[in-house]
Amino acid sequence: MSGQEKFVEGFSKKSKAEKIRWLTAHYLNNDSRAVERLMRYWHTDKEIQERHENFIENTLSNYWLPYAVAPNFLVNGRVYAVPMVTEESSVVAAAAKGAKFWYRYGGFHARVLSTVKYGHIHFIYKNDPEKLKNFVDETTPLFMERLRPFTANMEKRGGGILSVELEDLRHKLPGYFTLTFRFETVDSMGANFINTILEEWSDYMREKYPDYGPAEDLDIVMSILSNHNPECRVRVEVEAPVEDLERQTGLEGYAAKMKTAFDMARVNPFRAVTHNKGIMNGVDAVVLATGNDFRAVEAGAHAYAGKDEGYTSLSRAFLENGRLVLRLDLPLAVGTVGGMTGLHPLADLSMEILGRPDARRLMNIMASVGLAQNFSAVHSLVTEGIQKGHMKMHLQNILMRLDATPGEAAQIRKIFENRKAHVHSVKEALEKLRKK
Amino acid sequence: MSGQEKFVEGFSKKSKAEKIRWLTAHYLNNDSRAVERLMRYWHTDKEIQERHENFIENTLSNYWLPYAVAPNFLVNGRVYAVPMVTEESSVVAAAAKGAKFWYRYGGFHARVLSTVKYGHIHFIYKNDPEKLKNFVDETTPLFMERLRPFTANMEKRGGGILSVELEDLRHKLPGYFTLTFRFETVDSMGANFINTILEEWSDYMREKYPDYGPAEDLDIVMSILSNHNPECRVRVEVEAPVEDLERQTGLEGYAAKMKTAFDMARVNPFRAVTHNKGIMNGVDAVVLATGNDFRAVEAGAHAYAGKDEGYTSLSRAFLENGRLVLRLDLPLAVGTVGGMTGLHPLADLSMEILGRPDARRLMNIMASVGLAQNFSAVHSLVTEGIQKGHMKMHLQNILMRLDATPGEAAQIRKIFENRKAHVHSVKEALEKLRKK
Repeated sequence: MSGQEKFVEGFSKKSKAEKIRWLTAHYLNNDSRAVERLMRYWHTDKEIQERHENFIENTLSNYWLPYAVAPNFLVNGRVYAVPMVTEESSVVAAAAKGAKFWYRYGGFHARVLSTVKYGHIHFIYKNDPEKLKNFVDETTPLFMERLRPFTANMEKRGGGILSVELEDLRHKLPGYFTLTFRFETVDSMGANFINTILEEWSDYMREKYPDYGPAEDLDIVMSILSNHNPECRVRVEVEAPVEDLERQTGLEGYAAKMKTAFDMARVNPFRAVTHNKGIMNGVDAVVLATGNDFRAVEAGAHAYAGKDEGYTSLSRAFLENGRLVLRLDLPLAVGTVGGMTGLHPLADLSMEILGRPDARRLMNIMASVGLAQNFSAVHSLVTEGIQKGHMKMHLQNILMRLDATPGEAAQIRKIFENRKAHVHSVKEALEKLRKK
Repeated sequence: MSGQEKFVEGFSKKSKAEKIRWLTAHYLNNDSRAVERLMRYWHTDKEIQERHENFIENTLSNYWLPYAVAPNFLVNGRVYAVPMVTEESSVVAAAAKGAKFWYRYGGFHARVLSTVKYGHIHFIYKNDPEKLKNFVDETTPLFMERLRPFTANMEKRGGGILSVELEDLRHKLPGYFTLTFRFETVDSMGANFINTILEEWSDYMREKYPDYGPAEDLDIVMSILSNHNPECRVRVEVEAPVEDLERQTGLEGYAAKMKTAFDMARVNPFRAVTHNKGIMNGVDAVVLATGNDFRAVEAGAHAYAGKDEGYTSLSRAFLENGRLVLRLDLPLAVGTVGGMTGLHPLADLSMEILGRPDARRLMNIMASVGLAQNFSAVHSLVTEGIQKGHMKMHLQNILMRLDATPGEAAQIRKIFENRKAHVHSVKEALEKLRKK
């Protein structure tokens, strides 16, 4: 089949059955097992299946990720079992281990520093900046008033537009200005609200500017929220006496070693990226389980880590007055209303399990899971290494791949209890077993 | 119920049924509908269900994300229908739109610049650096030899340890050195391989160092791969004559406006983060669909964007010889063997749909989807704004939330064809409709 035959017009307009038929004909040699594999993951209840299909375009089936909980999270005096969605083995185990470790020391102390979010109208301006300033100053109250129908509801809930400011960025790009908006969106992530406000506002600007100068002075390039929200941030800490930690772990110099490991991540980008990846392993699992957008959260977190010279870690360790303190500062723009949260039955169940938190409480929980994950990863690294824990799950995966029966798996597990598992060594052991 | 009763010992050891019983008793008021909701997402085939449960710990159910394809991706002369997994509406539509737009201009031209990955042994050294250098130089060939059982297989596939180098980081932290390894892991992401090598090597160092000086000179803090892999990178480009683009879009100055929009992202971090988030919307959807680790990919991409002074965009636009060129440089550490790819039936199907690519070809495809997504997002922003497209899907979600029947939905869709949809306005329209 030539390449051109694989081009298709109007794919999105086809029915699901037609889409699958086209795909298997052009990319799967009409293999009926492929169709079967897609259908195997459909829901038997057509209505539920349709609900899931309608979230996006061109849906053929449902991709499954394990849905789990990590119990024993003591956050600001309240105990949570936190729903987590991830494909990576040992993440939920590490979160649960971190939660239990810090439970005895009073758990996680988290607070939201702010929930202010940013949005911008980006434009090129070719006339006198004073004229522009004048235009912005005079029209801002006017446009605010015009936006009432859009902002009234949000204001009722305690949110809205906090400020509008003209920023001169001509030193970065000729003629570049932004109108920089700060928003409070309370319990929603706020993407639709913010983008609607910005697009309406730019329409008003285009309409009104000709009263001030030639229309071509003002070239509005785009109007959109920012995923960089350094102010919209939560800070979470755990702490314990150095002596107690050494007694608990049975390791002399444990707290000092943890502090050194955290310091290394602070100064070395190669370590910082992996250190932060560990934090996000935990955070994203809760973001997914609650129907939030993990790309937005990832972008915000890593950009915050890279906002100054060079890239650094999001969490720090301190040794103060005989205590080890671990602190994570995490920008986090998430919602508890809107988006997928209320629409996906399991995202909704996650909110129920968490006791229907508002956005701030959800931020506290997510950041706590991030710090627990971070702690557990670094703890493993500075003590036994991470491979031992990973390998237990890794062995499980190897056994699955080699189609080991439950009986065989139990015997192999015993053999590898104190040995590192590799595909070849497990295969060898399994073959030996099967020959018996 | 007091907080203490919500603490649990040995949760991971409970059976799935016991875990669910405990959870509903302590967090869901024994609500049988919650249990039902979890069970509703189990597979009817026990064996398939168990396979999915065993990927991680404490699994209670499966979290569903829509599995879709975006057709018409012409990458290096071959046409793909790309499997995508995402919860965000309009992402798959935007990818498909971008693919189709560039198809007529020869599609995406992608090449892998390198697949070198990093790993480090991080340690504090308290003796003469010359002695350390001597130790490393003398033991490196020895340890390489000892590692043969671990590296032989990888070398057969064309990979292995490329280099080992001592790095002095004492200017950043007292006594801080790393032993920096560069690896080639061919078609596997390589996490287990790299971490095993590093942990073995540090065991050898601990064992051998006493021949050179007092054991306490050498404090190995941790040994682990890095998710910062600036060399492991793919570059993808699309290009077309400016005239053709203006004719196709019907917009005078279209190419110049696109270039300005890309330039704004280059110089303004608030825009860069969102610009890159758009890229990752596409990349992550393919990462998920192929069973790869999106936290690793996210960390690597954003850290690369933030590696120098300030955070910048991953893609650039150029106007050269009457042509618009869009270029994305994306660090990407992914695998086509190992991990979840072969274990998750739908991840495996994704690989089949893509024609069983090796890691390099998969990197090319992922980066192409990233650039397509990026293009479509910026295109929408500089033309109609993003809300119009979003709102179509947003309306769908609002209708779902308001339990509109298919008949009602069709009528509402007609009403909002040229109007922005908001929960309150849709609700109003729906109520009016129902009163009739």
